[in-house]
Amino acid sequence: MERVNGVNFGNWLVLEKWMNPALFAGTKAEDEYWLAQDLPQEVYEARIKIHRSEYITERDFVTIASWGLNTIRIPIPYFVFGDRPPFLGCIEELDKAFAWAERYGLKILLDLHTAPGSQNGFDNGGLSGVVTFGQDEKEVEFVLSVLERLAERYGKRPGLWGIEPLNEPLTEGIYDASQVEKRYPARDPKMASHNKPISFSFLEDFYTRAYERIRPHLAADKVVLLHDGFSLLRWQSFFKKSGFANVALDTHQYLMMAEMAGCPQTVEGYKDYIKEHYEKDIAAVQAYVPVICGEWCLFNSLAVGIDTHGGQTVLNGVAGAAKESFTKEEKRAIYRELADASLKAWNRGSGQFYWSYKLLTDTVNEAGWIGWDAWDLGRCVDFGWYPVARA
Amino acid sequence: MERVNGVNFGNWLVLEKWMNPALFAGTKAEDEYWLAQDLPQEVYEARIKIHRSEYITERDFVTIASWGLNTIRIPIPYFVFGDRPPFLGCIEELDKAFAWAERYGLKILLDLHTAPGSQNGFDNGGLSGVVTFGQDEKEVEFVLSVLERLAERYGKRPGLWGIEPLNEPLTEGIYDASQVEKRYPARDPKMASHNKPISFSFLEDFYTRAYERIRPHLAADKVVLLHDGFSLLRWQSFFKKSGFANVALDTHQYLMMAEMAGCPQTVEGYKDYIKEHYEKDIAAVQAYVPVICGEWCLFNSLAVGIDTHGGQTVLNGVAGAAKESFTKEEKRAIYRELADASLKAWNRGSGQFYWSYKLLTDTVNEAGWIGWDAWDLGRCVDFGWYPVARA
Repeated sequence: MERVNGVNFGNWLVLEKWMNPALFAGTKAEDEYWLAQDLPQEVYEARIKIHRSEYITERDFVTIASWGLNTIRIPIPYFVFGDRPPFLGCIEELDKAFAWAERYGLKILLDLHTAPGSQNGFDNGGLSGVVTFGQDEKEVEFVLSVLERLAERYGKRPGLWGIEPLNEPLTEGIYDASQVEKRYPARDPKMASHNKPISFSFLEDFYTRAYERIRPHLAADKVVLLHDGFSLLRWQSFFKKSGFANVALDTHQYLMMAEMAGCPQTVEGYKDYIKEHYEKDIAAVQAYVPVICGEWCLFNSLAVGIDTHGGQTVLNGVAGAAKESFTKEEKRAIYRELADASLKAWNRGSGQFYWSYKLLTDTVNEAGWIGWDAWDLGRCVDFGWYPVARA
Repeated sequence: MERVNGVNFGNWLVLEKWMNPALFAGTKAEDEYWLAQDLPQEVYEARIKIHRSEYITERDFVTIASWGLNTIRIPIPYFVFGDRPPFLGCIEELDKAFAWAERYGLKILLDLHTAPGSQNGFDNGGLSGVVTFGQDEKEVEFVLSVLERLAERYGKRPGLWGIEPLNEPLTEGIYDASQVEKRYPARDPKMASHNKPISFSFLEDFYTRAYERIRPHLAADKVVLLHDGFSLLRWQSFFKKSGFANVALDTHQYLMMAEMAGCPQTVEGYKDYIKEHYEKDIAAVQAYVPVICGEWCLFNSLAVGIDTHGGQTVLNGVAGAAKESFTKEEKRAIYRELADASLKAWNRGSGQFYWSYKLLTDTVNEAGWIGWDAWDLGRCVDFGWYPVARA
C-alpha cells in the first residue's frame, strides 16, 4: 500500500456549523438534519447548492496536487444518492470530484460520514445528540445499499483509493467518556430516548456485511478502510479471522483527546504523548493491519492560549482566547515541531489525512476563535506551520 | 508610491456568470440585474449570501500574503450600501475584508465596478448591453454619494490603499470597436434604446467631482485611481491642469485585446507586442502620472489552442478548444515567459493587479473551457505559471 499523504474535505458534503456559520444563519439548527427542517425547502436548496459549488472546486484539486499530497478523504452523507428527502443528494458533486482527481493525479477515499439515526450523535454525524444507528435493520440495510451503489459506481475508477463504510461509530468503550449527550444536546429529546452506544459485536458484523457487499465491485487495489471505533488496539483477532483482502484500519487522533487523557499542554508534553502513545500503538497495530490516521490536526490548547477542555468552542458555550498568546514566529515554531512529530508517528503506519482542507471560521472578526485556524490545512501551509513538498 | 503587486477579487461582490455558473443556474439571467429579477427574493438572497460568505474568506488573505502580494483590488457594486432594492448591500463583507487585510498586512483598493444604467454594458458592469450611465444627473449624484460614503467609512483605515471612482467607462474612442451591443445583447431592448458611449468631457468632469468629494475624507497617502477609459495616452493635459494630489491612472491590458489589434498568436508575437506597446506606452505616461495595470492576465489564444476571437467563450456562443494543444511543460513555458514579459512592462509603471484571484470555471467537466484556468491566479501559482516570492 502506497503511503497516504492526504487531507479531508470536511464540511463540503457533510456540514459542520462551526466551520461554516453563514449556512446556518437565522436558524436554530446545529446540524444539517435541523437545517433542512428550519429553512423553507427552496432556501435550503439554494444555500446547499451554492455552498457545494463554491466550497470545493477544480482549483482546490490543483492546490492539493501542488502540495505533493496524493489522496483526499471525502466525507459523504447517507443521502448521497438523493433518495432521502428533504436532503439533497450529492452524487453529481462526487462525479465531478472524481474527474478532477483523475485529471490532477489524486485519489479519493469515500468516507460514509453519517447514517440514519446517527452512529455518534456528533454535529458532524448530521444529527446532534442522537445515537440510534444499528437499532433498525431496515436502516442498516439502507446504508449497506448506499455503500454497494458507491462501489458499483466508482469501484473501478482510477481516481478511487478506497471506501470507508462508517465514520466514527461511538462504541461502548468511549460512549460515557465522550459526554456526547451533554456536548451535543438533542434538539428533540424523543429522538434521543433510545440512545445507546454502538456495540463492537454489531460493528464487526456490520463491517463484515459491508465488506462482502462492496468488495466484489472494487478493483483489487482499492482499499476497504474500517474505523476503529475509538479503540485502536482491539482489532487483531477480528482481522485475523476475517480473511479480508486489502483492508486497513482508520484511527483518529487529536491532541485535544490527548489533553483530555491528561497530556501536559506543552510542546514537550505533546511530543512525548505522540511518541509514547500514537507512535507505539500504530507501530504495534501496523504489524498485522495497515493503519491510517484518517483524522488529526495541529490544533492544541497551548497554541490557543487557554485550556479548551478537549476542543470545545464558543459554539459549545466555552469562551475562547481573548488575545494571541504567542508571536507569529513562536506559533510557527510550536506548530511546526508538532507537525513533524505527528507525521513521524502516522508514517509508522500507512499514512494520514489532515482534518481538514479548509474551514470558513473567521478568527479576526468573530471573537473567541483564536487558534482555530490550525484546523485549516490551507492556512497551516500558508503560515508555514505544515511542511509540504511543492512540485 | 510603493509599487503595487496585487490581485483582483473579481466575481466576489460583482458577479460574472462565466466565473460562477451555479449562481445563475435555472435562470436566463446573464448578469446580477436580471438574476435578482428572475429569482424569488429569498432564493436570490440565499444564493448571494452564501456565495459572498464562501468565495472570499480570511483564508484567502492568508494565501495572498503568503505569495508576497501587497494589495487587493475589490470590485464593488453601486448598491454596496444596500439602498437599492432588490439588490443586497455588501458593506458588512467589506468591513470584514478590511479587518482581514489589516491583520495580514495587505491593502485594499475599492473599485466601483458598476453604476446605475451601466457605464459599459459588459456583464461585469452588472447590466449587459446597456450603456446609459451619465445621462441622468440624479444617478450621477447617487454614485458620487456612494464614493463619498466609502471615503468617509474607510478613508483613514490603514488597510485602505485607495479608491477608484469608476471601472472601465466605455468611452467614445472604443465604443464601436468593442461591439458591446453584439457581444452582450440587452435582454430588454427598451433599456438599451438610449445607449451611448461615455464622452471624455463627461468623464473628466465626473472624475473631478469624484476627486473633490472623496479627497477630503482620505488620509494623504491614499490614492485616487482613475481608469483611462481604454485610452491610455490621452490624459496628460487633464492631469497637468487638474492639480490633483496622489492620483494614479489605471489601464487594463489583456492579450486578447492585443490579438484583436492584430498581434500574432505566438510567444514571440505576444512578447513583441508587450514590449512595443504596453511597456513603451506605460513608460511614456509614467513620466507625468503613476500608471497601474489594474487588470490583465495570462490568458491567450495560443495556449488555448484556438483563436478565441478576443476572448469570447462558450457563453458568447463561440466554441472552445476540444482538447489540450500542449503538454503541461509546454503550457508552463508559454505562460511563464509571458508572465515575466508582462510584469516587466507593468513595473515600468507603478505596478499591477492580476485579474483575477479565483474563478470557479470548471475546465474538466464542462466542455469548451480549456485554457480559461489562466484567468485564475491561484491556479497560475499552483501550476507554476506565475512567479511568486513565498515568505
